[in-house]
Amino acid sequence: MRVRLYGLVFFLSLSAGLVPVHHASAQDWTADFSAAPYRDAANRLIAAALADSAAYERLAELGDRFGHRLSGSVALEKALDWMLAEMQADGLDNVRADPVLVPHWVRGNESLTMTVPWNRDLPMLALGGSVGTPAGGIRAQVMVVSSFDELRARAEEASGRIVLYNVPWEGYNTIYRRTGATEASRLGAVASLMRSLGPYSQQTPHTGGMAYQEGAPRIPHAAITPEDADLLERMVDRGQRVELHLEMEAQTLPDTWSRNVMAEIVGRERPEEIVVLGGHIDSWDVGQGMMDDGGGVVAAWEAVRLMKELGLRPRRTVRVVAWTNEENGLRGANAYVEQHRDEVDNHVLAMESDGGVFKPYGFGFSGSDAAFSVMEKVGALLESIEAARVTRGGGGADIGPLMQLGVPGMGLSVDGTRYFWYHHTDADTIDKLDPVELAQCVATMAVHAYVAAEMPNRLPR
Amino acid sequence: MRVRLYGLVFFLSLSAGLVPVHHASAQDWTADFSAAPYRDAANRLIAAALADSAAYERLAELGDRFGHRLSGSVALEKALDWMLAEMQADGLDNVRADPVLVPHWVRGNESLTMTVPWNRDLPMLALGGSVGTPAGGIRAQVMVVSSFDELRARAEEASGRIVLYNVPWEGYNTIYRRTGATEASRLGAVASLMRSLGPYSQQTPHTGGMAYQEGAPRIPHAAITPEDADLLERMVDRGQRVELHLEMEAQTLPDTWSRNVMAEIVGRERPEEIVVLGGHIDSWDVGQGMMDDGGGVVAAWEAVRLMKELGLRPRRTVRVVAWTNEENGLRGANAYVEQHRDEVDNHVLAMESDGGVFKPYGFGFSGSDAAFSVMEKVGALLESIEAARVTRGGGGADIGPLMQLGVPGMGLSVDGTRYFWYHHTDADTIDKLDPVELAQCVATMAVHAYVAAEMPNRLPR
Repeated sequence: MRVRLYGLVFFLSLSAGLVPVHHASAQDWTADFSAAPYRDAANRLIAAALADSAAYERLAELGDRFGHRLSGSVALEKALDWMLAEMQADGLDNVRADPVLVPHWVRGNESLTMTVPWNRDLPMLALGGSVGTPAGGIRAQVMVVSSFDELRARAEEASGRIVLYNVPWEGYNTIYRRTGATEASRLGAVASLMRSLGPYSQQTPHTGGMAYQEGAPRIPHAAITPEDADLLERMVDRGQRVELHLEMEAQTLPDTWSRNVMAEIVGRERPEEIVVLGGHIDSWDVGQGMMDDGGGVVAAWEAVRLMKELGLRPRRTVRVVAWTNEENGLRGANAYVEQHRDEVDNHVLAMESDGGVFKPYGFGFSGSDAAFSVMEKVGALLESIEAARVTRGGGGADIGPLMQLGVPGMGLSVDGTRYFWYHHTDADTIDKLDPVELAQCVATMAVHAYVAAEMPNRLPR
Repeated sequence: MRVRLYGLVFFLSLSAGLVPVHHASAQDWTADFSAAPYRDAANRLIAAALADSAAYERLAELGDRFGHRLSGSVALEKALDWMLAEMQADGLDNVRADPVLVPHWVRGNESLTMTVPWNRDLPMLALGGSVGTPAGGIRAQVMVVSSFDELRARAEEASGRIVLYNVPWEGYNTIYRRTGATEASRLGAVASLMRSLGPYSQQTPHTGGMAYQEGAPRIPHAAITPEDADLLERMVDRGQRVELHLEMEAQTLPDTWSRNVMAEIVGRERPEEIVVLGGHIDSWDVGQGMMDDGGGVVAAWEAVRLMKELGLRPRRTVRVVAWTNEENGLRGANAYVEQHRDEVDNHVLAMESDGGVFKPYGFGFSGSDAAFSVMEKVGALLESIEAARVTRGGGGADIGPLMQLGVPGMGLSVDGTRYFWYHHTDADTIDKLDPVELAQCVATMAVHAYVAAEMPNRLPR
């Protein structure tokens, strides 16, 4: 497939009067590449992004009008309808929606109560993909462990218990979320709970994806707050018998339809060559999904809108994509590659923001040394907003399938100090973001995307 | 009363072979006062406080066993029973409980839902003292104002509405909490809401006391999160009609009995002269009431327990008090003065911690210049833990009635940076505190209390 497409590129490039530069000859021009010719356009993009709080207002509108947007939800599809209409109103080219079949997990009502030794409701969130409890719930004694090792060492205690993984935060390690239910179920546990993944909490449970492995009954799996995980551990350590009552209506419904929404500025010389940038429009079913990842979608969208507004139509096509279903399926990212397979080799660069639209430092880049040296120079155009850094390594879940097929990938790099304070919680709301920082993210994405689409030679792989 | 007691003090002091120093002659000794003779005892107290995490474990046990402790609750009285037993076990003198009649407000079930333009549950907390809604709740359009001035300027819009005070945080200004319901009701509003009082939130509502003024119907009054207050304001600003459904079962039951719990180390020479220290044992009905004010009670209690443990029986009596019902009545503090009226003039010093048991800086002091100069020198004994500061002004609600009667007062001064992140919320839990910082608070209270009780002359008023 790649060979055939390269042939097509070659033919089209020849028709456009240009000789395409491929791997072999990349060194020829990249060493001499200078970003200086793009400084004026870059400065115009930066100034336009920082001129107002348009991006922040658009993001707030997304969050306020539709709230969170889990795959399968009405809110997600309404948000996509709104995006399509807005992108048309922005005057972007080729506004379109590609259908994507997505999982449809629903939370339903849920509650967790400590019933022994005294009564207290514990804030909780079922983990995405979990089964529910039987009607009337599950009542059982809690068994607190700090690791799978401890669980196995005390295996004979697990039967009939609700296992709580109270694993202190040491970065975003999702193993207990993803496999904790099966590991506990194998030893006879009737449900499993985990300490929410995050460094800071105000009684804030976090959700996120989980899955079941074969060979053990599917038991309900949910997250409680770090505060309550510690509380239960202290009580058990004092010799108290702690019993919990868990009720969850969580269930997985048949797959349903969502969409990848996209729009373009069609390239003036090489419309078939594409710089794609975006984020995922779906979120978990909590908060407003503003940093995970409404902000990424809006930053990319605004970057493209600003090019349009400034009359900057680069040589290549710039395409913004709102991928659907990143959180519990990655179906949008995979469908994009399937549905645009004949364009993949013409994807010059794929860019994503999915780490929160906080103060940007620049980008992390994955690709060849030659391409890296070019994008490093592009980064220097962002020195005025201290976002010039381009480092080795980076990408994102939504552009992952493209990167696997050889497309150079870039992930926006930001000050993530507080990202996991909010991630997958009700606290992922617009007020946690700063309009100026978001505008800087827009500028950073816009400059890299514009220059990658405008440079005479195609970025080498 | 004061004259008679002074006479008694004079007599007892003479019996003890010492000439008591009163107001007139205070300057005589205070100028020459040196804290040097107490350095050894101070160092022993500091070392003992920092030797282990006993205070933290005791505080965690209070929070974990009983949870929050609103006046009228079973949890409060169980916590007091536990304290009495523990104080006996500590070997303290004169462990006792004074009965106090306290208000009995109960929250009941409550919920707030945005019903128009779309559906969303809004985290909320009724404010203490509020009435509930009629059964079935109140449905009304929201009117957002940023001040009483704006409310009055738009008075004709308020009728039939739920008024939301979205007043940005600028410090602990309780006016909208205390009087917001009546101000809105006067203009015909059917309920009132306020933006929670705090600088940081993760969808964290804060509660606190409110009251009704005469001349307007009593309407329900509750707090929503800062995030949601801003959300509703943005929606209204976009021209959307926002309707809410508020249901609250809040009600005030007849007054009920609680207790001020106290214990002593009886003074070896002047048992009738008292240094009192403590905090309030009641809390709002959220979180664990650890910094407001379980930590204050436990720090004072541990300070006295350490004196006992170290065999330090000072010249005067040191009394630790857990005052009840600070939050919604101050009945404990008032009852203490009533019930101990004949001792008030022999209260040499009153000390309180009610600002969170974070890293202590020292104390704020309210009293005469002469007394201040003495306590400033005592403070220097705490230089090793950087808690030497003694500043002008300070006290606390629970020692307020004593201070009004002339007793010098001191309030523990701490790093309050995050205090209002947690204050009156579910996030006021033990994990937010640090064992070493709490131990430093214990040491700071212990050293000041011990030296004030041990110095040959009574601290002047």
